[in-house]
Amino acid sequence: MNNSQGSTPAKPAAPRAHKGYRSRRPRPKVKQPVPQNKPSVSVIPLGGVGEVGKNMTVIEYGDDIVVIDAGVKFPGEELLGIDLVIPDITYLVENVSKIRGIFLTHGHEDHIGALPFVLRQIQVPIYGTRLTLGLVKNKLTEHGLMRDAQLHEITADDIINVGSLELEFFRVNHSIPDGIGIAVRTPVGLIVHSGDFKLDQTPVDDKVLEFSKLARYGDEGVLLFICDSTNVERPGYTPSERTVGDTFRSVFAKTQSRIIIATFASNVHRIQQVINTAAEFNRKVAVVGRSMVTVVDVAQQLGYLTVPKGMLVETEEVDRLPDNQVTIITTGSQGEPMAALTRMATNNHRQIAIREGDTVIISATPIPGNEKLVARTIDNLFRIGADVVYKDVAMVHVSGHAAQQEIKLMLNLLRPKYAIPFHGEYRHQTTFSKLAQTMGIPADHIIRCNIGDRIEFNAEQGQITGSVEAGAVMVDGIGVGDVGNIVLRDRHHLAQDGVVIAVVTIDKENGTILAGPDLVSRGFVFVREAGDLLGEAKSKVREALTTRTAANTTEWSILKNLIRDTLNEYFYLKTKRRPIVLPIIMEI
Amino acid sequence: MNNSQGSTPAKPAAPRAHKGYRSRRPRPKVKQPVPQNKPSVSVIPLGGVGEVGKNMTVIEYGDDIVVIDAGVKFPGEELLGIDLVIPDITYLVENVSKIRGIFLTHGHEDHIGALPFVLRQIQVPIYGTRLTLGLVKNKLTEHGLMRDAQLHEITADDIINVGSLELEFFRVNHSIPDGIGIAVRTPVGLIVHSGDFKLDQTPVDDKVLEFSKLARYGDEGVLLFICDSTNVERPGYTPSERTVGDTFRSVFAKTQSRIIIATFASNVHRIQQVINTAAEFNRKVAVVGRSMVTVVDVAQQLGYLTVPKGMLVETEEVDRLPDNQVTIITTGSQGEPMAALTRMATNNHRQIAIREGDTVIISATPIPGNEKLVARTIDNLFRIGADVVYKDVAMVHVSGHAAQQEIKLMLNLLRPKYAIPFHGEYRHQTTFSKLAQTMGIPADHIIRCNIGDRIEFNAEQGQITGSVEAGAVMVDGIGVGDVGNIVLRDRHHLAQDGVVIAVVTIDKENGTILAGPDLVSRGFVFVREAGDLLGEAKSKVREALTTRTAANTTEWSILKNLIRDTLNEYFYLKTKRRPIVLPIIMEI
Repeated sequence: MNNSQGSTPAKPAAPRAHKGYRSRRPRPKVKQPVPQNKPSVSVIPLGGVGEVGKNMTVIEYGDDIVVIDAGVKFPGEELLGIDLVIPDITYLVENVSKIRGIFLTHGHEDHIGALPFVLRQIQVPIYGTRLTLGLVKNKLTEHGLMRDAQLHEITADDIINVGSLELEFFRVNHSIPDGIGIAVRTPVGLIVHSGDFKLDQTPVDDKVLEFSKLARYGDEGVLLFICDSTNVERPGYTPSERTVGDTFRSVFAKTQSRIIIATFASNVHRIQQVINTAAEFNRKVAVVGRSMVTVVDVAQQLGYLTVPKGMLVETEEVDRLPDNQVTIITTGSQGEPMAALTRMATNNHRQIAIREGDTVIISATPIPGNEKLVARTIDNLFRIGADVVYKDVAMVHVSGHAAQQEIKLMLNLLRPKYAIPFHGEYRHQTTFSKLAQTMGIPADHIIRCNIGDRIEFNAEQGQITGSVEAGAVMVDGIGVGDVGNIVLRDRHHLAQDGVVIAVVTIDKENGTILAGPDLVSRGFVFVREAGDLLGEAKSKVREALTTRTAANTTEWSILKNLIRDTLNEYFYLKTKRRPIVLPIIMEI
Repeated sequence: MNNSQGSTPAKPAAPRAHKGYRSRRPRPKVKQPVPQNKPSVSVIPLGGVGEVGKNMTVIEYGDDIVVIDAGVKFPGEELLGIDLVIPDITYLVENVSKIRGIFLTHGHEDHIGALPFVLRQIQVPIYGTRLTLGLVKNKLTEHGLMRDAQLHEITADDIINVGSLELEFFRVNHSIPDGIGIAVRTPVGLIVHSGDFKLDQTPVDDKVLEFSKLARYGDEGVLLFICDSTNVERPGYTPSERTVGDTFRSVFAKTQSRIIIATFASNVHRIQQVINTAAEFNRKVAVVGRSMVTVVDVAQQLGYLTVPKGMLVETEEVDRLPDNQVTIITTGSQGEPMAALTRMATNNHRQIAIREGDTVIISATPIPGNEKLVARTIDNLFRIGADVVYKDVAMVHVSGHAAQQEIKLMLNLLRPKYAIPFHGEYRHQTTFSKLAQTMGIPADHIIRCNIGDRIEFNAEQGQITGSVEAGAVMVDGIGVGDVGNIVLRDRHHLAQDGVVIAVVTIDKENGTILAGPDLVSRGFVFVREAGDLLGEAKSKVREALTTRTAANTTEWSILKNLIRDTLNEYFYLKTKRRPIVLPIIMEI
């Protein structure tokens, strides 16, 4: 765990200007010769391996570093009070002069969310496709970082040369449009990073994953394939996004009431399908929820969302429309306490309240850890008398990640010498390894690495040769890295049994008690019930201190321990709980 | 939420002795006449409706009350520090003289776990089948409550008359042996409570659910069916427990390494299948984990588990056996931090450590809320190099609850006039209602009730006519009900942002500051990072207090508010966090 302060950024050396990029540059016909005396190429994941979240991969050759993605991770419930977790980028700060750019595969938070924190420490160029950059701009504007940002829009057909590295891109399918994978041509060999991908044969935007480029890479020879492994446990294929559209259509067809659909704000294709279905059934669409409004705005402006004229209505207009003309698309598919659907379901939303007879489609599956929140929302909706369509009863969501058959196809197209599973916990890495072995890749060519590992490849072989400073940095409020394990341990302890503070004012000359002991508690016992308990505890402390006075100790640490031990013992005896006991001694 | 103290039990009136029970009493051939002038019968759920857990149902006719089950609920993560949740039994305490007995459907914690707390408040007879009572005895012995316990063993063929009520029982299939449903014959009509059930056509103990009794009840006429609704969202049938045995067999057949199987301790049939498979493949079995050892002991003693001679070995012997003769059956299938498998997977178990090459079967699905814990255990096992067989990759678990087709069969057998879904959240209640309507039961005859509702039935109709005091009582350590919403709210607040204590000693005559202000924090910021923050905060408080002194205020509440406001504002400005601020003023 890293506790370094983010508020005093290292002074970065000015990054070398990247050498520009050209559109549709013909792919070189000859393979790069594998250099024998040149240094090797290293891959260093700074996040996203052995975990799902905060994706960040460093590719380093000589004096050139490219970084793929800069994501956040949302904290599990065990990280009490933490807002976000970001990668520790010490290695990037130390090597800022080498960094040629951060290349973004797509606009999900676990790939772009750490950018504001990264850019406060290092100023480097950012490359991304149009929609990805659209979302990045929004984020950087919010953080007041747009002025100095060096954003470079790319398309999947661009080729970019930075130092000794050449980057190509290929379009992938995912649960957000404009996703790409990245091929990094190094003097040692070709490294292909899948990005987050699935193969959708019938994508909503008709843009199928670019098989042909992958086939060409395979022919050229792939040194290393870094592959999305999130769904590697699932046999078969991930269904097409269009299957969700079919569900929408069947629900709309039989419904005369208002229809409210909650989904991930970033799933523009899903939103497009809502809009298409609404159009088909003569309904208007209102967009609710801050992030949903933002994404719909950005996606529309940039041409990723096609909305018929007059289709979108303001939230206030909803009440003026007949029920069978209303569609509301909203955030809150994860039951997040502050999200719009959650509020609508508890009558806490400023504008919309779910009513009896409404039909609510929760077009998502709960992210692990959110199951109970989602269940609570569904329950609240049912209590109101809404009809709820959710994953247990209908095909309302498909994953954005490749299942086994898609990963196999990818491996067959690329025929990589080495493979690294990313975007997965250790069990995904292991399952990927088994699957890749069935495709003929030797076990020691499938590298299950940890955050910070340096995996080094030369012409002969690839292996983990060391590690760099890396890990997780916690963000809480404004603070970046000022909450570490000690603070978290205290929060856990406080959460379990609360806190009792014991204050006593003593005469610093002779240790006489001048005031107190006073006891104050929070989160320990209900005070009305606990009157006797705290009263008795106070006597115990006084007694202990009085006995002590005979020994004439005015040593603070001894007094504090005495108070702490007395209270710990007494409270455990009486309640079997162990609140944090904080003795405070005031001297006069 | 009820905050009444459990530690001072109401003095119970001695319950009337039950009128005894007879085995195999022939069922009366004539229907009970529906009385016109007699009082109605009431059903009052004290737990288990609108929730999964702490099942407890009261059936009341005139001066006679029978209670079905007395379960606990395991707290969600939001109930910080809480160990257990039990039903508020105020209504039972107030009506103790009417209670003819608590009838247990089976030995799961959510049906028997509250007994120790209940029996400390009311002394009433307990009825249950042999295995159920075996588990109850264990529990009551642990709590030192066996001396006064009135336990009555029943079989599914017994008929028991208590006051004006007659109780019959019918065998059901469930994920623990010896489960029963209960038919309560009242002067108003027959009430059938399903218990937790599934229909297993090929149960491990060959004891199929007693269809014939249900058919007879149907012919007799059923006023009300109280039905397990946990799996009502699932179409089709719940698979037979034997399908898990098939998975075990296929894993054992191809494995030469040690096999470790984690499952629910109470699933005796599952344990039986492990033992059978081990026998088939010439392996021994070691039993690990406190609750697993207890259940295997009790089940063996009572004849619910058949173990070939010499099959079970002590844990110490495991290391002396060749790997291909070792089976270990253990707790920890939910990733519980203190359970045996969790410890084995982190090398924290006293006797067993998982090794590379071991095969671990997690024969369970995560209970909602435990997903992350289970995922962490699987990950740890993979990291060690174990082969892990879990629900995502094999058929390692089946549910113990009926799916839609089974519930429909039950409804067709019983043809009840009214139905109440229990053992389900509101969405299960609603889905049950829809399903029952498709079977011809009118919507207003399917009652989705809340805890504490009194549902009253007479010859003409059934409806909710009122409610009794009821709810959830939280158990934390020894304390029963001394942690309520205020304490929990504080624990949440403490968990989010920690606590800052500000102490100042003042002269009570003129308000001069004699010592302090001193600030102490826990769970707020890492102290090394926060030196300046707390130092600056201290000056702010001093400044505020000094200004105040001019106004000569020595009013405590004003001073405290001044300190609190000053610190809240300062901390939020600097950190965007809101720790609990506790001002303490000492006067001399």
